[in-house]
Amino acid sequence: MGYKFLKKLAKVDEVIALVSKKLKTELTTEEIDFDKSLGSVLAEDIISSFNLPPVNKSAFEGYAVRGTDVLSASQYYPVRLRVIGEIKIGVGPTIESTQGKAIKVVTGSALPNGFDTVVPVEYVRASDDEIEVSKSFPIGDNVIQRGEDVKKGQKVIRKGKIIDPFDMAMLAHLKQTRVKVLEKLRIAIIPTGSELIEPYEVGDVYKTVNTNAYALSALCKEHWIEARRLSVVQDDLEALTHAVRSSIEDHHALIMTGGTSVGESDLVPESVRRAGKVDLVIRGIGIQPGRPTGVAVLNGKPVFMLSGFPVACIVGFMALVRPLLYMMVGAMEPPRPIVKAVLKSRVSSSLGVVSYVRVKVRRKDEGLVAEPIRVLGSSAVSSLTEANGFLMVPIGSEGFDGGSEVEVLLYSPIQG
Amino acid sequence: MGYKFLKKLAKVDEVIALVSKKLKTELTTEEIDFDKSLGSVLAEDIISSFNLPPVNKSAFEGYAVRGTDVLSASQYYPVRLRVIGEIKIGVGPTIESTQGKAIKVVTGSALPNGFDTVVPVEYVRASDDEIEVSKSFPIGDNVIQRGEDVKKGQKVIRKGKIIDPFDMAMLAHLKQTRVKVLEKLRIAIIPTGSELIEPYEVGDVYKTVNTNAYALSALCKEHWIEARRLSVVQDDLEALTHAVRSSIEDHHALIMTGGTSVGESDLVPESVRRAGKVDLVIRGIGIQPGRPTGVAVLNGKPVFMLSGFPVACIVGFMALVRPLLYMMVGAMEPPRPIVKAVLKSRVSSSLGVVSYVRVKVRRKDEGLVAEPIRVLGSSAVSSLTEANGFLMVPIGSEGFDGGSEVEVLLYSPIQG
Repeated sequence: MGYKFLKKLAKVDEVIALVSKKLKTELTTEEIDFDKSLGSVLAEDIISSFNLPPVNKSAFEGYAVRGTDVLSASQYYPVRLRVIGEIKIGVGPTIESTQGKAIKVVTGSALPNGFDTVVPVEYVRASDDEIEVSKSFPIGDNVIQRGEDVKKGQKVIRKGKIIDPFDMAMLAHLKQTRVKVLEKLRIAIIPTGSELIEPYEVGDVYKTVNTNAYALSALCKEHWIEARRLSVVQDDLEALTHAVRSSIEDHHALIMTGGTSVGESDLVPESVRRAGKVDLVIRGIGIQPGRPTGVAVLNGKPVFMLSGFPVACIVGFMALVRPLLYMMVGAMEPPRPIVKAVLKSRVSSSLGVVSYVRVKVRRKDEGLVAEPIRVLGSSAVSSLTEANGFLMVPIGSEGFDGGSEVEVLLYSPIQG
Repeated sequence: MGYKFLKKLAKVDEVIALVSKKLKTELTTEEIDFDKSLGSVLAEDIISSFNLPPVNKSAFEGYAVRGTDVLSASQYYPVRLRVIGEIKIGVGPTIESTQGKAIKVVTGSALPNGFDTVVPVEYVRASDDEIEVSKSFPIGDNVIQRGEDVKKGQKVIRKGKIIDPFDMAMLAHLKQTRVKVLEKLRIAIIPTGSELIEPYEVGDVYKTVNTNAYALSALCKEHWIEARRLSVVQDDLEALTHAVRSSIEDHHALIMTGGTSVGESDLVPESVRRAGKVDLVIRGIGIQPGRPTGVAVLNGKPVFMLSGFPVACIVGFMALVRPLLYMMVGAMEPPRPIVKAVLKSRVSSSLGVVSYVRVKVRRKDEGLVAEPIRVLGSSAVSSLTEANGFLMVPIGSEGFDGGSEVEVLLYSPIQG
């Protein structure tokens, strides 16, 4: 309602596909110390330049032996071997293998040449300088072979990966102390609207506090993004055009909020059109709240035009902006926590839109229950802080009845 | 295997409960600018000091009317009202209500006294300075009431919440420009082992690269944590005792890795015992890999003793350390992405341990399929980077057959 001029709403997936085709994202790469790289987008494949482990190692505490010596061992015909030494972790073994001998090892001990099998300590009767093995082991058993973890020349981390803690372990492991990563994606956040004041500004009760820029910069808080909150721009075509034109050069993407509904003060899309070479403008997207959301491609860069209403703004970010930001850097979105819950009461939606219903998921005896937070309008910030998840009603559905099992995208912990 | 002296393994949930009772965590609070607070632990309840919205507002584009005027409206007996003005967003209305009058409004317009109902634009036939309303609306319809979003005195964010992007929107909304948060939890990460070298150090093939400190500091990369990697400590009781004693004062928790298995070089637990007042020492925990994991409470602070083997170290962190860190700051762990997948081949586990099996989840025509990554030993870092999730085999299970439906904790995106 209220967007009568936007009767035909574009499907968000189609918008993402259309926009991504028009983008000409140019990102430079830089080589940095690996221990500063957590959360960066890897700009090269990581290939191992050696075998790991570099030598054969024992997988357990026990005794390294020649495999052929214990092949015939059994409870009735145990094999006796003389213990000729011990190999600690981190030390190179100097002993050569000879028939009938064993060496004491711990987990991770490097194995001397010829000692190709490890008998774990629990299968051994040890006395002074001798052990008795009463079970047969296949040759090579309990040995971590050279290169078993990583082979020389193996690709271990792919270009485009957002470096996570396990990648950090791998980079250390490979002694890859420098890595090539993408420069940060620079995003300008431009709140618009003559009614806006900043949180620290004094204004009368008719002013609206700029909440969107703070929510958006927080949603952009990823190591691979550098989001900058720019000053509020008034509802003035010249001022808006100037803001767009002056920020599009230094940034890879713009996120504007406010002034996007179709009406008299509908200046944001017009300012984008005037600011440079516009390849594509889409207005009206099938998300609720957030129908007036728009996006343009200006000089090969995306300009997102989100609603000024806080919840609609955030839904526009989640549905449209975030997927495209990941695509711009060639990375995949991280997995998100989705749970099944029983809906407490009916939620309604319109055909042709994906509705983002804020729900509070609680843990009850009978399982998880999702209670819709009832609010009017898309400006109620409290619906976001009271809820802990979004129930997305699909585009072809008019809603779900109370008692239905639904999937909820959780963004906050479930509190008992 | 290899931990014959740790036959009785403690259940990780019981260890967490025991340790949390013994901890005496003392954290100071500090007041900071709200726009620096994302990811901090809130140290006060946030109470609204005013109503939001502060005035009644229109929820839609349309016409504000006196509700009594349109109660009788119907298709056959439409009501005509004279349009006497327009109210833009951000402006205080000066018009007083009089019978038979309407005012043009947009979404978010403040409503003048007496105009208590809004007729959305799609239910109106407008001409020059008159509208025709052909549908009845209950009094108050389509109006966002003063205080409907947030009431004065309402608690909107709870103490102990880790401030998220939606909380940022709320803090801005409330003009709460300063917030009280907990000081950061200071954690010292102490790698131990005479075999260790740093990734940038040259060493022979028998040395082990310190991967754990990098993985752990990455896993601790939360805004509310300040993790410090300390230097590698040799397997020497005096050096270890000195390291523990000198770091426990300045930190709220220590994480030590290496030297925890029961054997001759088992010096870490002894060094903790010597370093101060020890309330509790638990060694041997029912997680796999990671059985030799231990924890002590030293001067009221936790000292985690994790395995030196990378995967076991990480599992120890996830199963034991992370839950306790959240408890120390009184916050809840964020929801984690768990998916159901069909297991490709059998995984085995032992009774009495929770096994953390690394699996690679793929999207197939028939749904998600989880393939176990086969490796020997808990040092194979590649099992973490090849996999994208953990399948946790419960303590009372000996494993799952191929074809079973299992739950996987995803830590990396699913790639087609």
